[in-house]
Amino acid sequence: MDEFGIHKNRLENLRDLMRDNGWDAVVIPGSDPHCSEYMALRWHQIEWLTGYTGEGDMVVTLDHAGLWTDPRYFIQAREQLEDTGTVMHETRVPNAVGIPQWLAQTLCGGRIASEGSGEEEESGPVTIAVDGECTSIGMVDDIRKAVGEKGIITNAPSFLDELWSDRPRVPQTPVQTLGAEQTGWSRIQKIEWIRNTLRAKKCDAILLTALDEIAWMLNVRGTDIDYNPVVMSYLLVTQEEVNWYVQKGASQDLDSETADSFYEMRADGVNILDYGEITISLASMMEDGTIKALYMDPSTLNYNLYTVMKENSANTMILGGKSPVALRKAVKNSVEIAGMKEAHLEDGVAMEKFLYWLEKSVQNGETVSEWDAAVALGQLRAEIPGYRGDSFETVSAFGKAAALPHYSTPTDGSTVIYPKGLYLNDSGGQYIFGTTDITRTVPLGPCTEEEKIDYTLVLKAHIGLATAVFPRGTAGCQIDSLARIALWKEYRDFRHGTGHGVGFYLNVHEGPQGIRQDFNRQPILPGMITSNEPGIYREGKHGVRHENLVLCVEAEKNEFGDFLKFETLTLCHFDTSIVVKKLMSPEEIEWLNAYNERVYETLKDRLTPEEASWLKTKTRAL
Amino acid sequence: MDEFGIHKNRLENLRDLMRDNGWDAVVIPGSDPHCSEYMALRWHQIEWLTGYTGEGDMVVTLDHAGLWTDPRYFIQAREQLEDTGTVMHETRVPNAVGIPQWLAQTLCGGRIASEGSGEEEESGPVTIAVDGECTSIGMVDDIRKAVGEKGIITNAPSFLDELWSDRPRVPQTPVQTLGAEQTGWSRIQKIEWIRNTLRAKKCDAILLTALDEIAWMLNVRGTDIDYNPVVMSYLLVTQEEVNWYVQKGASQDLDSETADSFYEMRADGVNILDYGEITISLASMMEDGTIKALYMDPSTLNYNLYTVMKENSANTMILGGKSPVALRKAVKNSVEIAGMKEAHLEDGVAMEKFLYWLEKSVQNGETVSEWDAAVALGQLRAEIPGYRGDSFETVSAFGKAAALPHYSTPTDGSTVIYPKGLYLNDSGGQYIFGTTDITRTVPLGPCTEEEKIDYTLVLKAHIGLATAVFPRGTAGCQIDSLARIALWKEYRDFRHGTGHGVGFYLNVHEGPQGIRQDFNRQPILPGMITSNEPGIYREGKHGVRHENLVLCVEAEKNEFGDFLKFETLTLCHFDTSIVVKKLMSPEEIEWLNAYNERVYETLKDRLTPEEASWLKTKTRAL
Repeated sequence: MDEFGIHKNRLENLRDLMRDNGWDAVVIPGSDPHCSEYMALRWHQIEWLTGYTGEGDMVVTLDHAGLWTDPRYFIQAREQLEDTGTVMHETRVPNAVGIPQWLAQTLCGGRIASEGSGEEEESGPVTIAVDGECTSIGMVDDIRKAVGEKGIITNAPSFLDELWSDRPRVPQTPVQTLGAEQTGWSRIQKIEWIRNTLRAKKCDAILLTALDEIAWMLNVRGTDIDYNPVVMSYLLVTQEEVNWYVQKGASQDLDSETADSFYEMRADGVNILDYGEITISLASMMEDGTIKALYMDPSTLNYNLYTVMKENSANTMILGGKSPVALRKAVKNSVEIAGMKEAHLEDGVAMEKFLYWLEKSVQNGETVSEWDAAVALGQLRAEIPGYRGDSFETVSAFGKAAALPHYSTPTDGSTVIYPKGLYLNDSGGQYIFGTTDITRTVPLGPCTEEEKIDYTLVLKAHIGLATAVFPRGTAGCQIDSLARIALWKEYRDFRHGTGHGVGFYLNVHEGPQGIRQDFNRQPILPGMITSNEPGIYREGKHGVRHENLVLCVEAEKNEFGDFLKFETLTLCHFDTSIVVKKLMSPEEIEWLNAYNERVYETLKDRLTPEEASWLKTKTRAL
Repeated sequence: MDEFGIHKNRLENLRDLMRDNGWDAVVIPGSDPHCSEYMALRWHQIEWLTGYTGEGDMVVTLDHAGLWTDPRYFIQAREQLEDTGTVMHETRVPNAVGIPQWLAQTLCGGRIASEGSGEEEESGPVTIAVDGECTSIGMVDDIRKAVGEKGIITNAPSFLDELWSDRPRVPQTPVQTLGAEQTGWSRIQKIEWIRNTLRAKKCDAILLTALDEIAWMLNVRGTDIDYNPVVMSYLLVTQEEVNWYVQKGASQDLDSETADSFYEMRADGVNILDYGEITISLASMMEDGTIKALYMDPSTLNYNLYTVMKENSANTMILGGKSPVALRKAVKNSVEIAGMKEAHLEDGVAMEKFLYWLEKSVQNGETVSEWDAAVALGQLRAEIPGYRGDSFETVSAFGKAAALPHYSTPTDGSTVIYPKGLYLNDSGGQYIFGTTDITRTVPLGPCTEEEKIDYTLVLKAHIGLATAVFPRGTAGCQIDSLARIALWKEYRDFRHGTGHGVGFYLNVHEGPQGIRQDFNRQPILPGMITSNEPGIYREGKHGVRHENLVLCVEAEKNEFGDFLKFETLTLCHFDTSIVVKKLMSPEEIEWLNAYNERVYETLKDRLTPEEASWLKTKTRAL
């Protein structure tokens, strides 16, 4: 059976299961029990069902299979879903019909009448099964509101288990602990802080479900999920207990790092319980009144666990709201900031060595594919002491491939890079002292006028945000236009956010802040680290993105306000050879020259003489 | 009795009334039964009680009287409230405590225990009387949520009537009608449009309560309220009836214009009923099932009328939401746009004549006070055929007075303008073909470096927004920073919005769009007219504001989006003599020169030779 046949077959098996259970539709979100963005293999459900490897959520009915995704993945989804029996639905575009509305219209709006019957049948209620283990409360709520009384929502946790015989199990990778000298705060300090925070909210317990929040709280890291150094677990903190629900096997089978970590954590008062025990443990502590007022964040709590909570809420008040950990974690302390700066120094050296090697190799006529380039960069990063892996899958894209903002470089048969046009590399590293995320777009040979102009305009957009000053209280959506205006004025734009929060040796995407065109009210605060990554993408032609990470710092306080600004952390030059200088203002040129000079001066002693000399040329003032 | 004694006395009389009724607090909003921004004299309740003439809301308890207002009025409120027994509370500042929270904390948080008793008494429920006629549903809701079960909210419409013996009555000024040749749409077309809109919302009736929406719907104008050319009334449109509730006296007493207007409107099927009849009329049409599903906008419906609706909702569904009229009205049609352009041409001539006269007079040593200047400009506008009054109270402010964004120029004893520093004039006219709103800040003699720099930075901010390009769907809060960034980069800012919607021969402030730092999601659409008015204010020194009105128009549509931009409508030069050129970019200078040249070329033939020659000098390229 060919690849597409496999997926069509799996869909039909799923439909048999649906018929057996009397389900008219199933909802399979592209997430895990912790509402994570990146998932362990066990939760790659949509990939198993369709072969599609990007982000998205899925709905299957008896006669339709749809994948809902946003513009970053449109091209990829169309390609990967061809002939699989699943079709793409667009989100985040004008007049987009989301899953809740689609279900309401298709199943609950009388449109399920038999075709050709000439008249609409009065339809009975429809049953929609959601994989409650991987579905957020919010999504279930949205579906319930949309379908109204005509839809019956059934919680069917992990319903694919029945069909997926070789489904991977919950990962059990080693657990690493970090000390206060690495994170700024010891786990005991963090537990004390969260208990005080809970008291102020008149709660006596909090259930943390977001994996990066748990890792931050406990000063632990793992490799349960690719790229995100987290440990699959739940954390329940009461005024008396700290219960960590984590699956690492029987104690006699533990690897020595995990055994040491557990020993250290127990000494700090952390009870270690089994991952699967969360349900019964939570239920009994609510039932017996141990927990009187429980705080939880509905945005990362799955529907299955929420159902358990509600069923046992006779003696416990449940308070839902934003997790206090998310904001506390996003505002880096001085130890974390020092670590992030160190990470960017090391990462910058690797990037410059990589760009030097790439330019020389390609221009010398050596055969370097996109994949080879990604591997070479990965090796340079891996040589850095403290390297723990990449922070996300490297985007190594040449020419038109770079028009896909989230291009996934194929392992085999990827395009060979030749000395013409633009090469884009978006990548980052996880180090025990920090996380990086950088994009550089570089010319490797002659470029078209359009490539040069796009390159320059994106640089202007990048500088627009890098040099922003704004009063305390300003949210990302209020300054996103400071990047985009350089593109808008030339009638160009990009369909992704300009900036996302970045964790400290944690997830490369974190909230609560963002710099994008939504209406997220979270102010950008001193200590927050956010990306600055405008772009221009021309399908079938080329893509440009220039990305640095920026740290928000205090600028000046006076009668007009308390002003903040950004300090750029990333250290890697921007190629000036194709900058269309007449499009740049004197202030922009000044910023660019100063930045490139700082890169050279900071990195030169850590490069070989050849590399340093090359970088000196590259960073010559425009 | 002196002025302050009067107000203290009125407060004490109010407290007697409160004690008689058993009220612990009364809420007096600074509004009228239509949630208007400007009110007829009858509803100047806070001014009658305290002498304060700005915007704000008031709460009186037995031992406190507070006025809540925003930064635009802080200086004015502090001055006018001194020794009146009422104190100012700040809103729209960080950690502001609004009226609902203040009531909750002060009355319902145990803090009403007798002082000095040493222990807190268990307080019983407190009664809060709100003037439901002038209070929005939203405010009552907010108070109810804040005070919880401890507060009993009593609807006491017009409770000040008892104390205010010479309270003005509901105004009865003449009603003017406009034809389709003036407004683009006849009232019959508008009624057909609203009926179709209602059908789409599955409603059969709408109650319009916002006065400018009613004026737009019926193509009527009046002078019931200063500056806003509206008619005090309610409008109920069903699929069969158009009922206009308006108080203009007995038919035999009507002035001829109103009599003609009523005749014309009756011919178009509009039933004219008495203003006071709305309550009983609405109640009976709901009760008897004439109205089955009623649409209303809670943001402009008063609490008293809402109470009537709820009491009669047995047979009628009430649907609350944004009024469809607000958005439809904000997007001007081609006739309205042509009229607005004509208004700005005429208004520009008056402004240039005024600025010429002012400069010559002041520099010739003539005695011109701020008030004299306001009067002189008013006279120039009044000579324009079609002039119907000013669109708001002229701000004529010299020197430090201009640091108050909403300075109210005193009729008597206003400051004499002399040839030094900056003079600011913010004013506008109502013409039967459009509405204007303009601010010019002009140097009349030597200026300080700080004045020059502030002047230049505000000009940069103004140009930043004037030259903005943005994709369709962008909201005002997403582009507000394009103006502010020029100030933020120099650590300056202003505490008011950058832009408000402007009506067509209607209110100078209208929604639903705005360009400010809130999170208003309403996109700026082609046809919308908005102000562009950044500023810098230095208390005790000077104030700068540069304001034009801009029309949103289509720019270009391509693969990246559907781009919009602004076209500036206002025609009056910006003085370039104190521009600090080195702070301006070449693009900004180009915009300024082109704008000034357009002003000169458009207006020169309508000025005297002396004025035209003066303007030619003023608009010489920088």
